[in-house]
Amino acid sequence: MNQHAQRLTGRPDAAIIEAVRTSIAARFGNRAVTSPAVREQHGSTLTWVENQPPDIVVYPASTDEVAWLVDLCAARLVPVIPFGTGTSFEGHVNAPFGGVTIDTAMMKRVIAVHAEDLSCVVEPGLTRKELNAHLRDQGVFFPIDPGADASLGGMASTRASGTNAVRYGTMKDNVLALTVVMPDARIVKTSRRAKKTAAGYDLTRLFIGAEGTLGVITEITLKLYGIPEAISGGVCPFPSVRQACDAVIATIQSGLPVARIELLDALQVKACNVYSKLSLPETPMLFVEFHGTEAGVREQSERFGEIAAEFEGGPFEWATSPEERNRLWQARHDVYWASFVLRPGAKAVPTDVCVPISRLADCVEETQRDIEATGLVAPIVGHVGDGNFHVGVLADPGDPREVAALEGFLERLVRRALAMDGTCTGEHGVGQYKMKYLLEEHPPATLDLMRQIKRAIDPKNIMNPGKMIAV
Amino acid sequence: MNQHAQRLTGRPDAAIIEAVRTSIAARFGNRAVTSPAVREQHGSTLTWVENQPPDIVVYPASTDEVAWLVDLCAARLVPVIPFGTGTSFEGHVNAPFGGVTIDTAMMKRVIAVHAEDLSCVVEPGLTRKELNAHLRDQGVFFPIDPGADASLGGMASTRASGTNAVRYGTMKDNVLALTVVMPDARIVKTSRRAKKTAAGYDLTRLFIGAEGTLGVITEITLKLYGIPEAISGGVCPFPSVRQACDAVIATIQSGLPVARIELLDALQVKACNVYSKLSLPETPMLFVEFHGTEAGVREQSERFGEIAAEFEGGPFEWATSPEERNRLWQARHDVYWASFVLRPGAKAVPTDVCVPISRLADCVEETQRDIEATGLVAPIVGHVGDGNFHVGVLADPGDPREVAALEGFLERLVRRALAMDGTCTGEHGVGQYKMKYLLEEHPPATLDLMRQIKRAIDPKNIMNPGKMIAV
Repeated sequence: MNQHAQRLTGRPDAAIIEAVRTSIAARFGNRAVTSPAVREQHGSTLTWVENQPPDIVVYPASTDEVAWLVDLCAARLVPVIPFGTGTSFEGHVNAPFGGVTIDTAMMKRVIAVHAEDLSCVVEPGLTRKELNAHLRDQGVFFPIDPGADASLGGMASTRASGTNAVRYGTMKDNVLALTVVMPDARIVKTSRRAKKTAAGYDLTRLFIGAEGTLGVITEITLKLYGIPEAISGGVCPFPSVRQACDAVIATIQSGLPVARIELLDALQVKACNVYSKLSLPETPMLFVEFHGTEAGVREQSERFGEIAAEFEGGPFEWATSPEERNRLWQARHDVYWASFVLRPGAKAVPTDVCVPISRLADCVEETQRDIEATGLVAPIVGHVGDGNFHVGVLADPGDPREVAALEGFLERLVRRALAMDGTCTGEHGVGQYKMKYLLEEHPPATLDLMRQIKRAIDPKNIMNPGKMIAV
Repeated sequence: MNQHAQRLTGRPDAAIIEAVRTSIAARFGNRAVTSPAVREQHGSTLTWVENQPPDIVVYPASTDEVAWLVDLCAARLVPVIPFGTGTSFEGHVNAPFGGVTIDTAMMKRVIAVHAEDLSCVVEPGLTRKELNAHLRDQGVFFPIDPGADASLGGMASTRASGTNAVRYGTMKDNVLALTVVMPDARIVKTSRRAKKTAAGYDLTRLFIGAEGTLGVITEITLKLYGIPEAISGGVCPFPSVRQACDAVIATIQSGLPVARIELLDALQVKACNVYSKLSLPETPMLFVEFHGTEAGVREQSERFGEIAAEFEGGPFEWATSPEERNRLWQARHDVYWASFVLRPGAKAVPTDVCVPISRLADCVEETQRDIEATGLVAPIVGHVGDGNFHVGVLADPGDPREVAALEGFLERLVRRALAMDGTCTGEHGVGQYKMKYLLEEHPPATLDLMRQIKRAIDPKNIMNPGKMIAV
């Protein structure tokens, strides 16, 4: 065989795809689907990136079935695209070279809950809300909350985080072990169930954030947490984004164990007021939550109110009753849907960057000026405790002039973050759209090392090809 | 060149070492040392593993000097052994094939402190105590505390953790970015300074715990934390190890944000009473510490006292005054030295395993029975909040019968932990001695993946060869 024959470099021949389809259909029956609607639904979904459907969508029910599929595809150099719920924004699940999408929707088992150890083992298609519903009566919960009810496999693959990350960390910090079907169909268990280990390379973290380019995750051992005895939360208005950000820095530095601290700019508050029927003052706003004992969350809430007042924020109105808190946080979770009220009929183009927190106010303010100068409708929401914020541009992807303006804005946003020693994505991942920015973010030697890893682990280039750091 | 010539498979010829020595001496002058005393001091130090000194010890002062050294060694297939303070226990810094030890003792700069961002950038030879002394007047600190005043480069390389890990995580959780000289002398910066990122493979975590087998760490960006307003701490006796462990499980599961929770068995308490002039009851004992506000730590301490009482522990005597706390924690830190009072003249053989916390009491109790049956003198200390514990066997390595008994015990200890889904090392690392147990811990496909990574990144096998997962 020549080098070319051993490595995927483009779309496989139709005859190869047909042979693969026949083999899969024989084993999977109606769990293998080739209808255009289902294929398209499995290309990019919640993204504005152009849809590139796979050739075949298949629903395996076990690690062994995934291994069988990967083996089949590896032998014929056919792309394999792992799929969770399709809630990513950057085109992670597109199939630029066609191939087989492995949809994990039938892999939703909770394999084990070890409540005493604060850990559990699940299949990748289970969503975070399904897991928490399963755990509800055991006094434990899984905190990572990226907004969407994403699958836990997808969350691991994109290194997801979200509103709770400031207290509980990201997926990187909350996965103890993975089972992964490798590109050569071998099954690797990355680690054991102990809470920490120093026994060899950190294979777990290698697959977290790899966006399916190194293998298919088929089992996940997650950390769990005791449900807090008390939760307090509320909203706190500020005269400016800068003062809100400064209050966040002071809060984090004081060691106050804030569980969530989220910034909404005035435009986003306006959208939420309409969509979620709130009557918040339309000014920059922090949504804040504390987890702890009754006395603890009361003290922390009062302390936060004092810090906010130092930066002309407030009043901080907080409550420990679940009803009011849930209404506010539901509004926070619905910002994506709320933003459409600002421009009905438009497409939302959500993007994210992350900077060192000391530069957050600069980055948000400069971005707001840029939005105004560019003439965009684009509310801002931030996981500000981490220096991470989202811009949700409302745009018309059918208008070339608007797309040009949008793309110019996205490029300036990323470069602004990079110039502040930040990253082109704090939590959405690279997928297809940010590949060009990954190249700007890292020096050549760093990119080379990423390619070296990709080539060593997936020499045939069949795992989610054309994504992240294409080789 | 044939395959053999491109890859280190044994000790280089004397002529090659001499040529390397001459080149290094020409550039480094008296920063290159070949005296037997210094070479031996750089072989295994705080370990009972046989000393295997390097040929040359060199003290570079910059990343570029390290890259120059690695380039020189790579061209001639000469081993490179990174060295911090030599406080590892498992023979990590031995030179089984000779070669060049890169001692980072002259790389101690604090390159930047970003107090607002709660991060700093340091060189690898800086120790954790030196860093905290530097930070003292800025209201921030670095929490990871493995006991020894280890270098931060060594701590990153072994994925160190220690007493604070239950609250602040391990080195894995507290490094934002690394600069690494790769085995081909290229310089890789793994990440930027944002607190989180989803931009590409997690190269940072790849080097943390790699034990110097993938490159030489030359700069580290660390997370920092605000110094807590108040700290409370104290000791709590229990009738049995099992009751102490059950109290720990209940504490963790209740969500009490304990900063440290350490178990000393009765024998270790006895040793500490003598060495540190304490008068603790000689029974299993938890050392506990809380970080927070004055009111917070008081509430947490009282709550812990209640939990302890449910398991027949107590009284929990705690204080917020630094003097008493410091005296107790100094005793905790001195357990290694204290243990010698139990058998003066013996060598200490410290080892560690980690299990899911629900199995901790089983594992410690079975280990105590094994110690008694084997006739060893071996106190136990545990970072029990993580399910991690240490056995410090006092032994005479000159007595073959004793060594045989010791090695049998160590093997049973590891197998006991593995049978409970634990790991052969929670924080000490693999080094030389635990290589055989790494092979027992992981299935063949997992070990193969580790070897694949080692071969892809260090194809010449010059980085700390003969350690961890030798290829």
